[in-house]
Amino acid sequence: MGHPVEGKRFEVTRVIDFTARAFLACGATEDAARKTARHLIGADLRGVDTHGIVRLPLYVSRVQKGLMDARSAPELIRESATTAVFDGRNALGQYVAHEAMQRAIDKARDHDLGVVTVRHSNHYGAAAEYALMAAEAGMIGMTTTNTAPLMPPKGGAARRVGNNPLSIGVPSRLKAPLTLDIALSVVAAWNLMLAHGRGEKIPLGWALDSEGNPTDDPYQGFVGGGTLLPIAGHKGFGLALMMDVLSGVLSGGQFANQTRGLKSEEPVGVSHFMLAINVEAFMPLAEFHERIDELVRLMKSAPRRDGVSELMVPGEPEHRKMVQRQAEGILIEDRVIRELDAMADSLEIERLGVESP
Amino acid sequence: MGHPVEGKRFEVTRVIDFTARAFLACGATEDAARKTARHLIGADLRGVDTHGIVRLPLYVSRVQKGLMDARSAPELIRESATTAVFDGRNALGQYVAHEAMQRAIDKARDHDLGVVTVRHSNHYGAAAEYALMAAEAGMIGMTTTNTAPLMPPKGGAARRVGNNPLSIGVPSRLKAPLTLDIALSVVAAWNLMLAHGRGEKIPLGWALDSEGNPTDDPYQGFVGGGTLLPIAGHKGFGLALMMDVLSGVLSGGQFANQTRGLKSEEPVGVSHFMLAINVEAFMPLAEFHERIDELVRLMKSAPRRDGVSELMVPGEPEHRKMVQRQAEGILIEDRVIRELDAMADSLEIERLGVESP
Repeated sequence: MGHPVEGKRFEVTRVIDFTARAFLACGATEDAARKTARHLIGADLRGVDTHGIVRLPLYVSRVQKGLMDARSAPELIRESATTAVFDGRNALGQYVAHEAMQRAIDKARDHDLGVVTVRHSNHYGAAAEYALMAAEAGMIGMTTTNTAPLMPPKGGAARRVGNNPLSIGVPSRLKAPLTLDIALSVVAAWNLMLAHGRGEKIPLGWALDSEGNPTDDPYQGFVGGGTLLPIAGHKGFGLALMMDVLSGVLSGGQFANQTRGLKSEEPVGVSHFMLAINVEAFMPLAEFHERIDELVRLMKSAPRRDGVSELMVPGEPEHRKMVQRQAEGILIEDRVIRELDAMADSLEIERLGVESP
Repeated sequence: MGHPVEGKRFEVTRVIDFTARAFLACGATEDAARKTARHLIGADLRGVDTHGIVRLPLYVSRVQKGLMDARSAPELIRESATTAVFDGRNALGQYVAHEAMQRAIDKARDHDLGVVTVRHSNHYGAAAEYALMAAEAGMIGMTTTNTAPLMPPKGGAARRVGNNPLSIGVPSRLKAPLTLDIALSVVAAWNLMLAHGRGEKIPLGWALDSEGNPTDDPYQGFVGGGTLLPIAGHKGFGLALMMDVLSGVLSGGQFANQTRGLKSEEPVGVSHFMLAINVEAFMPLAEFHERIDELVRLMKSAPRRDGVSELMVPGEPEHRKMVQRQAEGILIEDRVIRELDAMADSLEIERLGVESP
């Protein structure tokens, strides 16, 4: 948010390896640890810093407290040619989500469509990670997850629904994959916590206080029992509720305010939804690629407002971050490095900052 | 918008019959005429007056000018067990959309999932009509369509993407079906035309002028070459673009600013997307119904803001309108009745206002 960050840069592979070592030390299999690490650091790579390495100490502390089970694996509960339901069995969320989207992709490869829902999972990080898996497989991918309850129903004054993200990924030959990943609150809770830490006010329209009144006090808007406001009023509330139907309700898992946040002393119990649509069922993939090229060209070549130097499509800013970070490494705040060091010590693994032998 | 309307009330069945007669007189089959009439007036019933009978004279005039073909029918271009692509062949949009969603539902009944896309279609009216078809069949339905280009890319100053509606319908035993139907612009173009007709200003944030600058002049914001703003900034633009990928791109039809509006002298060439998810693949329908009951109960029982007497879920306000209109009839403005009378005369059919023999 414009504030300078004190930190250090680390090579991407080093950060991924460190993260995988942490999960291995928690008892995860090599496969689960690698997949979780790749998707968690995938968020950092694409500039979604709030969903990346910064969460690792919290994840590990939840494993250490028995609130999240790094040794667990998702269990297939129900399956048809085109659909499946997994019980995430409180395993690492990114690992569970990866397995679920992979199964949706496999079904779509054989039967053109696949929908997989998951219950009893954990925070799965950046939703785009899974939509992109489908896109890389030549499929349109769509995913949502419910989150801890954060937003009120329209006219309400208590948290009843998450800011449930929606991500859609589109196969293309573009350098920057066309990918949407949006949370359905005006801003993430993170922004309120940042403002609170800095003693700043927040704009009206971000949050309500615990009585349901507009507030510019970030404490009242979140920690003090307030609610985050959905995007676009009733439209955002309605979308978030429908995302909960697809994930929480359709998976047989927890929904609405039955889920918990990462600070809770219970498993969070979130649910996911994965959809894969095989483009080849509709037209040859090469033709689809050409059509996406044209769609993107039509957007980027539009006349611009004064002062705007370039028009970008969804996924493009994230791709630029990725190219930059692959070259320059990932900047981690000193505050976070200290947390990671303490975590590494508690797991008896090498610290991130120590050169590998 | 709070202005009193001079008009008359008509029984719902009379309005549907009149509408069907108009399409029959245009050369439609009995089946196509009834389906189109039912979905068109379905919008009036549910309070979406902008997408109902008020459009009929324009539809008929497009048929009379050869811009829309009431005699045509959709043609199946490509099909698999779970997917299909229709060419709408410029037939009545509501009829085409009905056939497409019905096919998606049939596929989902046999194979748990169905996706049908449609190209070269016409304005399909209220999106919720088709999502509700799926819900009534025990399926989660999702539909979108592209529209005439109305909104700019983020930072742009020209129309490149429609305000492409997204509708999701959910099966339940609730009296009011849980249904979302949202357009992805802050307001519909209709609101700007109303304000312009009344000589009123519009709030900043609804539209940009033709240079891409914020405007409070409804003429500059729409007829004068402006653009409607998407909900939630880049989030709404991204969603609208993805809806165009699902409908325009995946159907092999027109997309972005290749589509046309209802005032154009060319076929509008819009595309649709229909998804049906068979709930029974995930859990017994009765169990799903119970879970939806509980989800809705959790929303409606939340603490309320001061001055709010009741919390409603998406679809509930529309259902109340429907109950009221089924009892009291549909109020049609005198201005619209005069247009309908002139249209009836030109088609040599009985006027709406004349008692059937």
